[in-house]
Amino acid sequence: MSIEHLHPVPHLTTVLSGPLQHIESHLLDRQAAIESWLRREWQTTPPPFYASVDLRNAGFKLAPVDTNLFPAGFNNLNPAFIPLCIQAVQSAIERICPTANQILLIPESHTRNMYYLESLATLQDILTKAGYEVRIGTLIEDIETPHEINLPSERRIVLETPQRNGNLLELPGFSPCMILLNNDLAGGRPAILEALEKPVIPPLELGWSTRLKSNHFKHYKGVVDEFAGLIDIDPWLIDPLFLQCGEIDFMKREGEECLETNVSSLLNSIQRKYDEYKIDRKPFVVVKADAGTYGMGVMMVNSTSEIKGLNRQQRTKMAATKGGRTTTKVILQEGVYTFETWGSAQSVAEPVVYMIDHFVVGGFYRVHTRRSADENLNAPGMQFEPLAFAETCITPELKMAPDANPNRFYAYGVIARLALLAAAREKAELK
Amino acid sequence: MSIEHLHPVPHLTTVLSGPLQHIESHLLDRQAAIESWLRREWQTTPPPFYASVDLRNAGFKLAPVDTNLFPAGFNNLNPAFIPLCIQAVQSAIERICPTANQILLIPESHTRNMYYLESLATLQDILTKAGYEVRIGTLIEDIETPHEINLPSERRIVLETPQRNGNLLELPGFSPCMILLNNDLAGGRPAILEALEKPVIPPLELGWSTRLKSNHFKHYKGVVDEFAGLIDIDPWLIDPLFLQCGEIDFMKREGEECLETNVSSLLNSIQRKYDEYKIDRKPFVVVKADAGTYGMGVMMVNSTSEIKGLNRQQRTKMAATKGGRTTTKVILQEGVYTFETWGSAQSVAEPVVYMIDHFVVGGFYRVHTRRSADENLNAPGMQFEPLAFAETCITPELKMAPDANPNRFYAYGVIARLALLAAAREKAELK
Repeated sequence: MSIEHLHPVPHLTTVLSGPLQHIESHLLDRQAAIESWLRREWQTTPPPFYASVDLRNAGFKLAPVDTNLFPAGFNNLNPAFIPLCIQAVQSAIERICPTANQILLIPESHTRNMYYLESLATLQDILTKAGYEVRIGTLIEDIETPHEINLPSERRIVLETPQRNGNLLELPGFSPCMILLNNDLAGGRPAILEALEKPVIPPLELGWSTRLKSNHFKHYKGVVDEFAGLIDIDPWLIDPLFLQCGEIDFMKREGEECLETNVSSLLNSIQRKYDEYKIDRKPFVVVKADAGTYGMGVMMVNSTSEIKGLNRQQRTKMAATKGGRTTTKVILQEGVYTFETWGSAQSVAEPVVYMIDHFVVGGFYRVHTRRSADENLNAPGMQFEPLAFAETCITPELKMAPDANPNRFYAYGVIARLALLAAAREKAELK
Repeated sequence: MSIEHLHPVPHLTTVLSGPLQHIESHLLDRQAAIESWLRREWQTTPPPFYASVDLRNAGFKLAPVDTNLFPAGFNNLNPAFIPLCIQAVQSAIERICPTANQILLIPESHTRNMYYLESLATLQDILTKAGYEVRIGTLIEDIETPHEINLPSERRIVLETPQRNGNLLELPGFSPCMILLNNDLAGGRPAILEALEKPVIPPLELGWSTRLKSNHFKHYKGVVDEFAGLIDIDPWLIDPLFLQCGEIDFMKREGEECLETNVSSLLNSIQRKYDEYKIDRKPFVVVKADAGTYGMGVMMVNSTSEIKGLNRQQRTKMAATKGGRTTTKVILQEGVYTFETWGSAQSVAEPVVYMIDHFVVGGFYRVHTRRSADENLNAPGMQFEPLAFAETCITPELKMAPDANPNRFYAYGVIARLALLAAAREKAELK
């Protein structure tokens, strides 16, 4: 039952659609091989509990640009597919913590971001329907709890302050058997979560206080090199090129030389691939905080001169990231154009795919009317309209065209799972 | 996203709805406890691969009346929930046979029953989308294969004759790692499936050549006795009473005395419960072949005189069952009224719930316009209209009324899983 009439799917600008059909055809033709390869990989390297992956669809290229291991935005998923989330949670938790019944959810410390709180309410609802008692333990210290918040959706969430009792983290009358983190720890690892007896999932080491995007994309490159051999495509078609620099201090202008050299090198590498595929577009590079999140500390550059000419305001913006930390490491990533647009206004649309355990459970498009194809859609202050996927990502239809909706969504789900596998390898490395 | 406007849900005759709300309230109140109890049970006794459970909803009582371990009717499920089936299959098979890629599906030997073949095509589609290569191996001996059949849905299935090579069952260029049975073996266990090296799932012992309904309901009673304690209800509200007799020969009129005695005893027991709950209905008993299926060899009786007065035609009907075998054992089961009706014609509707592994993946109503509440809706020659469930069975809504749609479907899913657990115990007993 398609609900396409309610949620039209973005229209892909077709000028350069040839190569994307090429990717999609390869994914469809080798679907059984892909799925059995992934099954084997999950056995060796179990996936993190959940993830959302931002994709860019340039027509000639389909690639992940960010992998979030503490996803928000659950409220943007198609309500019709929430049962898939419920079932995936049941499947995941019965393995992670087979006797669990009570789950303590640790959210971000936002109390005024209603978008985030709506996501939190949806996540709590999914876990509850999956058969668990779920309470929310806030890390905010100067808050009177229980703190009740009424949401625009007419739901209500209650924040409570967890108590550390020895190596247990508890609420009155509630002794959870697992602690589910929905806080990316960009501000550091809270002492209250260290050395707990019960599992903290995902582990603290996967937070942005230690994780680096460059390490993720290093693993992603490894995954893609294996996968591209399996399905016989040029790895570049699904992998954004990247480079990194050592320590950088934007305010003191230290480390700029490396930045300039690497931007130049990356722009040249992209241009060579564009030449190879006869792509008449201007290469661009995205400079991001290596441990950053929430679209803070992000900059698009088309030439090295843009790096040289940064003014004080731009430097300050790049230096600061979420949680007030200073950017000292950056990743330079190939910019991937977004050629998916939506509606008569041709608004740019960026897909975000959600996974729980190794199951793809849905996704949505970030639709933005005022940005162009080469701008970052996940930037501070950005207003996007979420547009839920009209179909799940798990119903490839061999009889339909490679770029028909179910097949395009399937392709999204495959590429997103490759990023998930990269995250699984990050996780395995921790041990 | 409800699609209720497309598929209206049957209306429950409300005269006796008090006690059903009682069951549903108990299930909702104890949802987390129920789910964690079931999780523990699945660890001790893993569920069969798949099952469909016929339920009867009498308003005051909600009970399973048949549990099919080789379900057909997948084509009757709501297409919107096929992704749930795909995900459940992925979850089930990665545990059953972690490296499986090729699956041989062994269907019933019907080539003209288009309803069955449509179900088979849907099952093949689910398995394919889950990431497996699936081919269909027929047990029909006098058929030229590959035998292609074009279906009313414009799909096509291909039946092939599997070859026994030592202890492997293969097709040209296809060496399956598991054999999925969708044949209930009512005609006996085919030699070609015996002692195979690769797993046959479900095992041959769960076919109707050995399985007995009375054994299933014995286990179901055990499950319900434990479960009723957990949620504090009278077990009778979810369990149909039953009795059995030894050998019976309908044609020779042997064993009739036991039948009469037990029908009488069962009618009295039901009447006592009806008195206790002030139910002003006439008790009835269903006499079924203990190893029967497809609604053959089934009879409804309101008094012992009906057993005494069986004419030759009725005897012949009771004696024969699917696959030409003779009924020698019968189960006498409390008849459960169906008080759910659909549409302005007040057609009787019987829910059927589908499970893959321990996940409830959907269901539909058998809607029949020409039968009354105490007649068997799964009888030979019966024409029913399948009406897909409007919602899944896994989204209980605590904020809604106990008998609101999501909660009624949740109740169906819980009771169906109790029957599934009974089947899991049958399976465990085999070893």
